[in-house]
Amino acid sequence: MTLPSSLNAIQPIQWRDDCLYLLDQRLLPQTERYLALDNCEDVAKAITDMVVRGAPAIGITAAYGVVLAARNRYAKRADNWREGIETDLQTLAQARPTAVNLRWALDVMTQSIEAVPSGDNPESSLLQLAQQIHEKDIRDNQRMGDLGAEFLQADSRVLTHCNAGALATGGYGTALGVIRSGWRQGRIASVYADETRPWMQGARLTAWELIHDGIPVSLSIDGAAAWLMQQRGLDWVIVGSDRIAANGDVANKIGTYQLAIAARHHGVGFMVVAPTSTIDMSMASGGDIPIEERDATEVLQAAGQRVAAEDSQAWNPVFDVTPAELINVLVTERGVIECPTIDNISAMML
Amino acid sequence: MTLPSSLNAIQPIQWRDDCLYLLDQRLLPQTERYLALDNCEDVAKAITDMVVRGAPAIGITAAYGVVLAARNRYAKRADNWREGIETDLQTLAQARPTAVNLRWALDVMTQSIEAVPSGDNPESSLLQLAQQIHEKDIRDNQRMGDLGAEFLQADSRVLTHCNAGALATGGYGTALGVIRSGWRQGRIASVYADETRPWMQGARLTAWELIHDGIPVSLSIDGAAAWLMQQRGLDWVIVGSDRIAANGDVANKIGTYQLAIAARHHGVGFMVVAPTSTIDMSMASGGDIPIEERDATEVLQAAGQRVAAEDSQAWNPVFDVTPAELINVLVTERGVIECPTIDNISAMML
Repeated sequence: MTLPSSLNAIQPIQWRDDCLYLLDQRLLPQTERYLALDNCEDVAKAITDMVVRGAPAIGITAAYGVVLAARNRYAKRADNWREGIETDLQTLAQARPTAVNLRWALDVMTQSIEAVPSGDNPESSLLQLAQQIHEKDIRDNQRMGDLGAEFLQADSRVLTHCNAGALATGGYGTALGVIRSGWRQGRIASVYADETRPWMQGARLTAWELIHDGIPVSLSIDGAAAWLMQQRGLDWVIVGSDRIAANGDVANKIGTYQLAIAARHHGVGFMVVAPTSTIDMSMASGGDIPIEERDATEVLQAAGQRVAAEDSQAWNPVFDVTPAELINVLVTERGVIECPTIDNISAMML
Repeated sequence: MTLPSSLNAIQPIQWRDDCLYLLDQRLLPQTERYLALDNCEDVAKAITDMVVRGAPAIGITAAYGVVLAARNRYAKRADNWREGIETDLQTLAQARPTAVNLRWALDVMTQSIEAVPSGDNPESSLLQLAQQIHEKDIRDNQRMGDLGAEFLQADSRVLTHCNAGALATGGYGTALGVIRSGWRQGRIASVYADETRPWMQGARLTAWELIHDGIPVSLSIDGAAAWLMQQRGLDWVIVGSDRIAANGDVANKIGTYQLAIAARHHGVGFMVVAPTSTIDMSMASGGDIPIEERDATEVLQAAGQRVAAEDSQAWNPVFDVTPAELINVLVTERGVIECPTIDNISAMML
């Protein structure tokens, strides 16, 4: 697959040598190492273990996982390769619970599986589809980046949370796509990023990506955002999403809800950037979205070392839900919604 | 000095063998090691380097630092030991900028220095005063603990930030004093603590203290507090303070302001617990309080290891200011103020 040359440097998901290569994001920024995967069980494990993370990136990865699943099923039994592939799809679907892009990608791939003529080798048509999903994600991100950047006045000061960048998508990024476009257009004066405990996606991944593109970034701890707004002033908080309910409630990395409250308190704009594959019309509101909780150990340690006192307990929800009324702008590849509601989201999703 | 037996176990500041012993809080909870200090320069360095931290504990430590300074000046030149001690007082005063208890303790000790008859050895009278400051702090904390606990209904769910406990004071603690009293009185159902990046005082110190006293505690990342309020419900956020302005604005550990905004958004009570030595009537409002910024490295690393991407910048303010209007209750040893204002604070400080 050919990416625009400006994006060639960060390609966290690659298909080459008949394998799926994933940049192991657990090791960044110290080490850039790719894992080669040739079966769907390993792909599911890589998603669960956060080798790859970020809702759109998880969707794309799962699509390639389906290619590998079909190839392996076909190799075992060419005349009846569809038998058993339902198990593979389930394995992939269960890799992580919150990002709906995973299920969306599997649904798209499943339709294509059903369309392959009996007896045909499914690999090439499924691979073509996975690559189309991948390429469309990058194009959509570029479009969202430009749409979102239109909201940034000159000399905007922006804050982002977690990593909704090239590493979380096929490339270019959602929230970081807006920041990339805004920066290129000279609209941005300063970029701040929350470090985003416990996985430190902000410090490790967002900073790495932005510095890679020559965009200076200042990190701060997750608790400092309100003080940043009060002391230095901010114009926009810009984040991605893992699932958006029909009414516009947004599930995103834990900490997002607290940011949205602080932004509203200070009159700072709050922008969510996500492809429509993130919108789950089957969820009436954010309360229906399953929120992953991960092991307490992730909170009890830092940089791989135990930090908390012995016998400490910890609560480790990975996402939270920001209610639609705290969101000023929702940017999708189909267009922009100001003040999302069930009505304007439904109209867009028709 | 004799402490009540229930408090004997956590004594971060000790005077014995004619030396000041400080529990090195940078090493907790893994290692319990005391540093022995016999001169004021080392005491100032221990404060700057956060061997000891927490506004009341810094004040007490500085008082003992004055004892050491006077002893060393007297040993050098008994007939004119006051000459040069002004330099020592300056060294101590500049150890950290935000906690006003440091200056308050030095002012009290300075008055006593002036009262020592010429030619007398100042050590014993100054030591007696430092120990009185220390003992009064513990008594005040116990009183504040009981006063604050009266606001807790049965089965209260409380959240604290940073460490405002025995380790941050002479003993018993301010915010943790309220939690200790409330727990003993059976008013508390659950205790949550923010981990408090970058120094992790919540995970390392607050959890250690509470578990030591048999009080179960659940940690979460600093960004999760609003989601905690929304998902599990909270009744009170209880914090300490490093300096309170005349109008009731409260400087405390970075992250406190964001918590106060989230608490107000959810109708959760916000309680500040601090001795009146924390109130600085010379500061009209929080905007006047000097806010320490520490090295960016503290944010760029975790558990002593570099985490952030190369060339990342970071903003590392150590405190923030919560405006008085977000504070429901201010608990001091002189009594409780609901909805602090310049008028009710001035009346209390008369």
